[in-house]
Amino acid sequence: AAAPAPKPAKKYLTYEERAKLATNPTASKLFNIMATKKTNLAVAVDLTRKQEVLNLADSIGSEICVLKTHVDIIDDYDQDFVHQLEQIASKHNFLIFEDRKFADIGNTVKYQFESGVYHISKWAHMVTIHGVAGPAIIDGFRDSIKQTGAGLLLLAQMSSKGSLCVGEYTNQMIEMGKQNSDAVMGFICQERLESMSDNFVLMTPGIQFNSKGDSMGQQYNTPDYVVKEKGTDVIIVGRGIYQNSEPKSEAIKYKQAAWAAYESRLN
Amino acid sequence: AAAPAPKPAKKYLTYEERAKLATNPTASKLFNIMATKKTNLAVAVDLTRKQEVLNLADSIGSEICVLKTHVDIIDDYDQDFVHQLEQIASKHNFLIFEDRKFADIGNTVKYQFESGVYHISKWAHMVTIHGVAGPAIIDGFRDSIKQTGAGLLLLAQMSSKGSLCVGEYTNQMIEMGKQNSDAVMGFICQERLESMSDNFVLMTPGIQFNSKGDSMGQQYNTPDYVVKEKGTDVIIVGRGIYQNSEPKSEAIKYKQAAWAAYESRLN
Repeated sequence: AAAPAPKPAKKYLTYEERAKLATNPTASKLFNIMATKKTNLAVAVDLTRKQEVLNLADSIGSEICVLKTHVDIIDDYDQDFVHQLEQIASKHNFLIFEDRKFADIGNTVKYQFESGVYHISKWAHMVTIHGVAGPAIIDGFRDSIKQTGAGLLLLAQMSSKGSLCVGEYTNQMIEMGKQNSDAVMGFICQERLESMSDNFVLMTPGIQFNSKGDSMGQQYNTPDYVVKEKGTDVIIVGRGIYQNSEPKSEAIKYKQAAWAAYESRLN
Repeated sequence: AAAPAPKPAKKYLTYEERAKLATNPTASKLFNIMATKKTNLAVAVDLTRKQEVLNLADSIGSEICVLKTHVDIIDDYDQDFVHQLEQIASKHNFLIFEDRKFADIGNTVKYQFESGVYHISKWAHMVTIHGVAGPAIIDGFRDSIKQTGAGLLLLAQMSSKGSLCVGEYTNQMIEMGKQNSDAVMGFICQERLESMSDNFVLMTPGIQFNSKGDSMGQQYNTPDYVVKEKGTDVIIVGRGIYQNSEPKSEAIKYKQAAWAAYESRLN
């Protein structure tokens, strides 16, 4: 028998095309921002004083599509911080991503998302969830998301050493996303898998030019590797930018590298 | 060939004996409190006003070994809440369990545990973690735990429908606990598995006398079933007590049922 024909190379769509296929409103909005601003760079700002976060956001805002926060590490968090951050996001046209990693039962995450001192549902365009508690976690977000159009990002793979987000677990997250594609805007992952359809945004943390890892299990890849070789959409850079003495010029370097990788994969 | 001899019934140790085997200081403390107060009841207080939480804690404090909180759903949370809760815990001799379900990389959970507006490391005797990010998450807690002796509870199984904390995932959580038994005090689980050694406290949520579940995937069992049939140590009751019009008398019923199940399994 003849050898099977080689599989055709994966055809990548543009972010403009993906915006039209998106099934969650924030996914569509994000693809459009990426196309308009020509950036697929998200920056994680893990600083613990609100003024530091705001200063960095304003400084790099023109270079990014998404700012990723952990509001629960900010020592002087208050509602004024959120108001100012929203103004900066609006001025620079980026989205706010609270990386809360919700991971409880539906009834609990509903309160964690909507209540407490943070009222995350009121200001975050997107949040991360772990599907480990089962698909009903998504029901905890549905009421609020119906009103705001916010997006959930399911953790399908993680960048840390020994992560259990692998194999069959990853497959189940993709399935959970597909069955809830009104609420789920995409995946946190390390690679594009065939089962991840074009309506989803694929975001990849653990990106840094010059480091192999930290002392607590974090592992790093480069922008070119994850966007061109692994086919994900948005790079998330943390310490490589916010700990750099010149974060703005460093952000430009990451933006250019990730965008070049995106353009290159279209050809 | 002769039929294999039936396995001898599992020999259960007393909580006093377990206190001596515990490898984490808070596990030992908790076993001793359970033995002294004759209660293996933990109550989850998912109320959103601090005075409601404090009132309930004071009202049922004499009946419980642990009060489980989600401080991030309390709308008027402040440091005074923590001070008052600590006084009530001290007065009634129970431990405070913040059910945060940490689930990020080591560097991030370190900040989430120690910093922000909550400073959880300063007042929680125990916290939950998901091991999904890999074992290095535990390194994020180690500095703080060395000083305070606090305990980590690993989520080995969950009570919600379709949970992915099952099978090989559960086995890996038990292994992660064993390899970090200085920091890990026990497991959140639905049953005692053979590989869970006697130094660990086994705590089981999703307990209610009269309900089969909620609309968001929660599923319930009775105290007798999980302590006697399934061999876990501490029952965690939430809505069955804090939503009851007479929480104190209801707490006594749960306490008696769970303690009778414990005594019965010793014989």
